Amino acid sequence: MDQPTGRKRKAAWNIPATRIAKNTHNPIRKIVDGMKLTPNPSKQMIALSIGDPTVFGNHPLATEITDAVIKSAKSEKNNGYAPSVGYEKSRAAVAAYYTCEEAPLTSKDVIFASGCSGAIEMCISVLAEPGQNILIPRPGFSLYKTIAESQDIITKQYNLLPERSWEADLDHMESLIDGSTACIVVTNPSNPCGSVYSQEHIHDILRIAERNKVPIIADEIYADFVFPGEKYFSMASQTCDVPILSCGGLTKRYLVPGWRMGWITIHDRHDIFAQEVRQGLTNLSQRILGPNTIIQGALPDILKLTPKSFFDETIASVKKVCDITYAAMTTIPGLKPVRPSGAMYMMIGIEMDKFPKFKNDVEFTEAMVTEQSVFCLPATAFGISNFFRVVLTVPDDKMITACERIREFCATHYCTSNGNGVCEIK
Amino acid sequence: MDQPTGRKRKAAWNIPATRIAKNTHNPIRKIVDGMKLTPNPSKQMIALSIGDPTVFGNHPLATEITDAVIKSAKSEKNNGYAPSVGYEKSRAAVAAYYTCEEAPLTSKDVIFASGCSGAIEMCISVLAEPGQNILIPRPGFSLYKTIAESQDIITKQYNLLPERSWEADLDHMESLIDGSTACIVVTNPSNPCGSVYSQEHIHDILRIAERNKVPIIADEIYADFVFPGEKYFSMASQTCDVPILSCGGLTKRYLVPGWRMGWITIHDRHDIFAQEVRQGLTNLSQRILGPNTIIQGALPDILKLTPKSFFDETIASVKKVCDITYAAMTTIPGLKPVRPSGAMYMMIGIEMDKFPKFKNDVEFTEAMVTEQSVFCLPATAFGISNFFRVVLTVPDDKMITACERIREFCATHYCTSNGNGVCEIK
Ligand SMILES: Cc1ncc(COP(=O)(O)O)c(C=O)c1O
Ligand SMILES: Cc1ncc(COP(=O)(O)O)c(C=O)c1O
Repeated sequence: MDQPTGRKRKAAWNIPATRIAKNTHNPIRKIVDGMKLTPNPSKQMIALSIGDPTVFGNHPLATEITDAVIKSAKSEKNNGYAPSVGYEKSRAAVAAYYTCEEAPLTSKDVIFASGCSGAIEMCISVLAEPGQNILIPRPGFSLYKTIAESQDIITKQYNLLPERSWEADLDHMESLIDGSTACIVVTNPSNPCGSVYSQEHIHDILRIAERNKVPIIADEIYADFVFPGEKYFSMASQTCDVPILSCGGLTKRYLVPGWRMGWITIHDRHDIFAQEVRQGLTNLSQRILGPNTIIQGALPDILKLTPKSFFDETIASVKKVCDITYAAMTTIPGLKPVRPSGAMYMMIGIEMDKFPKFKNDVEFTEAMVTEQSVFCLPATAFGISNFFRVVLTVPDDKMITACERIREFCATHYCTSNGNGVCEIK
Repeated sequence: MDQPTGRKRKAAWNIPATRIAKNTHNPIRKIVDGMKLTPNPSKQMIALSIGDPTVFGNHPLATEITDAVIKSAKSEKNNGYAPSVGYEKSRAAVAAYYTCEEAPLTSKDVIFASGCSGAIEMCISVLAEPGQNILIPRPGFSLYKTIAESQDIITKQYNLLPERSWEADLDHMESLIDGSTACIVVTNPSNPCGSVYSQEHIHDILRIAERNKVPIIADEIYADFVFPGEKYFSMASQTCDVPILSCGGLTKRYLVPGWRMGWITIHDRHDIFAQEVRQGLTNLSQRILGPNTIIQGALPDILKLTPKSFFDETIASVKKVCDITYAAMTTIPGLKPVRPSGAMYMMIGIEMDKFPKFKNDVEFTEAMVTEQSVFCLPATAFGISNFFRVVLTVPDDKMITACERIREFCATHYCTSNGNGVCEIK
């Protein structure tokens, strides 16, 4: 067959990837891939880097959770297509679980997504156009930036203040808002900080949103994952005026990140999202048709039957590791841990001037792998430097060993000035 | 707190949805929502419109499939995060299942996605930039257009020819290619047509792709779903030269659309995708972190243990309904069914001039609901007019009743010219 004339034919195969594909990169991957992570062969590797509570096997699942899934699978009632926003019955169960007087929910306010990641992707995509900006926390979970920048949405990072238990710097936050600010992302409780915001701090953030008429994406995947004595407030429970898209799911509190069961709850007392945003979210849900239906079908049982003791035990175990870690880290010269109140992480500051051998947190944590076979994520992965993040879902004994090794590592490299501007290894 | 000066503050809440959210619309929904679908109250509704083989309960699942999922859930080994492209072991199982001498596959050629829809979204997103165009079949599955247009990718529709069992119009296809054509989407077996392409026809399409150096997205979600005596050839098995992204999954053949277990297999013998496209797909998989891990964990068993008899029974049942339907439709004056060779659909042409009361297929099918309580999708939903699509996964008795009602409907409205240009109801 001859080639019709009048149009260009490519002479050779040359297939680039698109910008969106190239720009969808996880900064954590990039940093970790750039590190020389060769553990000390005489010490077994301890990874304090992985935000997956299932990897060490020390957090057993409540049998009720697995049983609900088995029942759902056996029923063979949950194999067909669900509505793209999710089964009505299952969305009603989420609404019933989270509804409260201050922030009432019905099934129509719930949209299912493929993990909290999928929920975040949909929320950013429905609110922010290419060229607009969104405010995200620094340090913060990297996905916000990954999603936004791949779609040519600009990210502006508001500072979190370690000296105020990682509260947002409110003046800084408000100073970043302009006429093109599409939303503020608030992560509470926080990855990587483990912070849990007080009611007052939430009010302060809400006032900024209200004053500037900017909606909030509340990443509340760690909702209720707070240590005994701490109190968690959802953003939506603290306002009648600011429209909020809250992102949640089973991932963290139910210890099943692989299940990809996430959701958006829409809080919008004045119908500000009613014009377009609700329909927009429904539209977006049609791209991949929601999460797995066996889990959707199990969800009402999971939410109803999982005993409180399961959460209490998980949190008690994380809290215990937190205490071990904090006690150790506060007594290591050169380190400054910030005490968390929830979630499963602790951020630890490095007084870099005391470790002149290392240029930054990346070199510091890299050397910790080489020498001590302990891997902590450098906070550069979360947008700030001179900190590292430790995951608190590891078994006690592993953490005790890890802390000893971190102590040895720091002692080896800690320097004090001898007054001549020369550094002395202690 | 005072408002810092020097930047615009919005005076009122006004939150539009983004273009991508607004533009992600399913044309089927739009058409169906625009139809007056009030069934005849004296006849029970029969929906021949839903492409979900589970809804009528007449296609039981193989116990091996459910058992594999229960085993995976019970093991509690598949609750954590999987790599975003999927568990290595499960990808290896898919590779082993589909590999053949002509199109070898290993686990690194397999990327998991949230359903075949998720696979299609990733493939289009990795290949086509906004402003570029992709070729899609007409009539065709609507998602290609939904995904592409929401991302400002242009779609050009190549005609399928009913008189050639819905083969592509090759000249038309090639005439649409220009320097900005990013890929050709080929659906085989086809929704909505039920067509299964011959080896020769696949070769013809591949020659066009090769000549113009345009890669192919092969939507092969109905792979192997062909009637006895027909033969299915994957696109990739017929070429060493054209790089192909094949999209598949458990959805159709395993009758579990809700599970959202889809995949991309990468076929690229000359490393044309090796430069960027492979990495781009991996990048994109990090947005939502792949499909549910319980299903991923069950996949090796599902692929290995599902007995051939399960597929044979499903297909025999669909074929039986196909024969019933075809036999009926060929004898209804004014209708012209096109015989399918696979998948689960039949397209039926309407000689519109014989039904002057109705302007088009939408009005025709709408009236069929009003009068006969039978709902078939007007082919306008798939990009062409004067056809309707019938789903073949319904129980025999329902289909027999439906055919009788369609016959009655057509008889009621069929007109022959009386020679005076006036139409006479028979
Ligand atoms: C703050 C935060 N949001 C969202 C996610 C993603 O959750 P999912 O696994 O449900 O997508 C994570 C996971 O680590 C997280 O830390
Ligand atoms: C041709 C075609 N491709 C893809 C899909 C979507 O498959 P999935 O449900 O796995 O996303 C369908 C569903 O009907 C289809 O007909």
